[in-house]
Amino acid sequence: MAATRKRTAGKNLKPVPPRRGPTPRGVEAKPSLPARGRRKRAGDAGGGELDAVAYASAFVRDVKDFPKPGIVFKDITPLLADPRAFQGIIDTFAQRFVGERIDAVLAIESRGFIFGAPLAARLNAAFVPVRKAGKLPYATDRVSYALEYGTAEVEVHTDALRRGARVIIVDDLMATGGTAAAARELAKRQGAQVVAFAFVIELEFLGGRKLLEPTPLVSLIKF
Amino acid sequence: MAATRKRTAGKNLKPVPPRRGPTPRGVEAKPSLPARGRRKRAGDAGGGELDAVAYASAFVRDVKDFPKPGIVFKDITPLLADPRAFQGIIDTFAQRFVGERIDAVLAIESRGFIFGAPLAARLNAAFVPVRKAGKLPYATDRVSYALEYGTAEVEVHTDALRRGARVIIVDDLMATGGTAAAARELAKRQGAQVVAFAFVIELEFLGGRKLLEPTPLVSLIKF
Repeated sequence: MAATRKRTAGKNLKPVPPRRGPTPRGVEAKPSLPARGRRKRAGDAGGGELDAVAYASAFVRDVKDFPKPGIVFKDITPLLADPRAFQGIIDTFAQRFVGERIDAVLAIESRGFIFGAPLAARLNAAFVPVRKAGKLPYATDRVSYALEYGTAEVEVHTDALRRGARVIIVDDLMATGGTAAAARELAKRQGAQVVAFAFVIELEFLGGRKLLEPTPLVSLIKF
Repeated sequence: MAATRKRTAGKNLKPVPPRRGPTPRGVEAKPSLPARGRRKRAGDAGGGELDAVAYASAFVRDVKDFPKPGIVFKDITPLLADPRAFQGIIDTFAQRFVGERIDAVLAIESRGFIFGAPLAARLNAAFVPVRKAGKLPYATDRVSYALEYGTAEVEVHTDALRRGARVIIVDDLMATGGTAAAARELAKRQGAQVVAFAFVIELEFLGGRKLLEPTPLVSLIKF
């Protein structure tokens, strides 16, 4: 994924993201180069797409011991604070799904809303919120899924999707895949066709991808 | 606001929103007219802007007794489900703020994310989430505000904004204005300049606008 990963100091980003491994191709990152001075190199493998994701990936910040001791949290707020990084992610998803006649973007509360809403707008699709139990005001359908300890529930309005609607399910991060699988179940119960999952970040070592088979899955930044 | 309010049956919208008062100008709404068949009339006062908001306003659904008995909740999910309505709101905000050098869009969890994120993308601005206490992983600043009973708190990351940044604060709905005022306080503590508040819906009868003076305030749909 990170064949051209660089670390570039964005104007709005104060904390420089920590290095996560050596710089590829032996090219040393130049933290003093302002983002606006950076140019896309013609001939990059994958064109602008890979480049946008590689650029954005440097803005994911590790926060240790959140939400509890021993967990390293992938903080996307520095990525959101850099307009080029944020829009690079949206653009990449849009390029993947434009022309696939996506009727609706199901986004999972609440960080999923941050990527799902601009993507729905870009695709001229409906935006459908999937929320934790008790948050949606109208008649809802509900699915439970397993957590490390106990269970949680997500809901969608019963009139959210029409039969045969082509939908994608969006979230910021896939860990075990439990929430996303529950969202898929909710969509299927309304007769919708889940075209794909779209995640900004995939925690590959947790193996959540398995749970979401055979639905196609797009993830941009992998750890 | 609703000088040209119409009720148009969107393709993706199954429940027709309830009428809230007489149709202006004596023009009877035509629920059977498909959205795609609707044309903007040349010469409408206010051009496309007013028209877009009037169109979107018909998709706000009243849900009685949510979240508790006696409350009428303004449900925006039918609006989000109609791509034209949703994008009409984003477009209208964008037209208001483009060219004002907005550096960042502060959006209030979690429905504020749904409008704030596409708007940030449209304005080429940073997206900064304001969240309930305990949700943001990195170092945070926190402001309390009064609720009907007791208090609540919102947080922002301490490195979210640079001094002098021009920001707008976005939420789906303004009721008493307490959360928005707290978000403004968070922004000011980081030295940012709050250019305006932007709300999709304003509940005028609650008088929240007073609390937010003298910051300019844009609200599109008023009840």
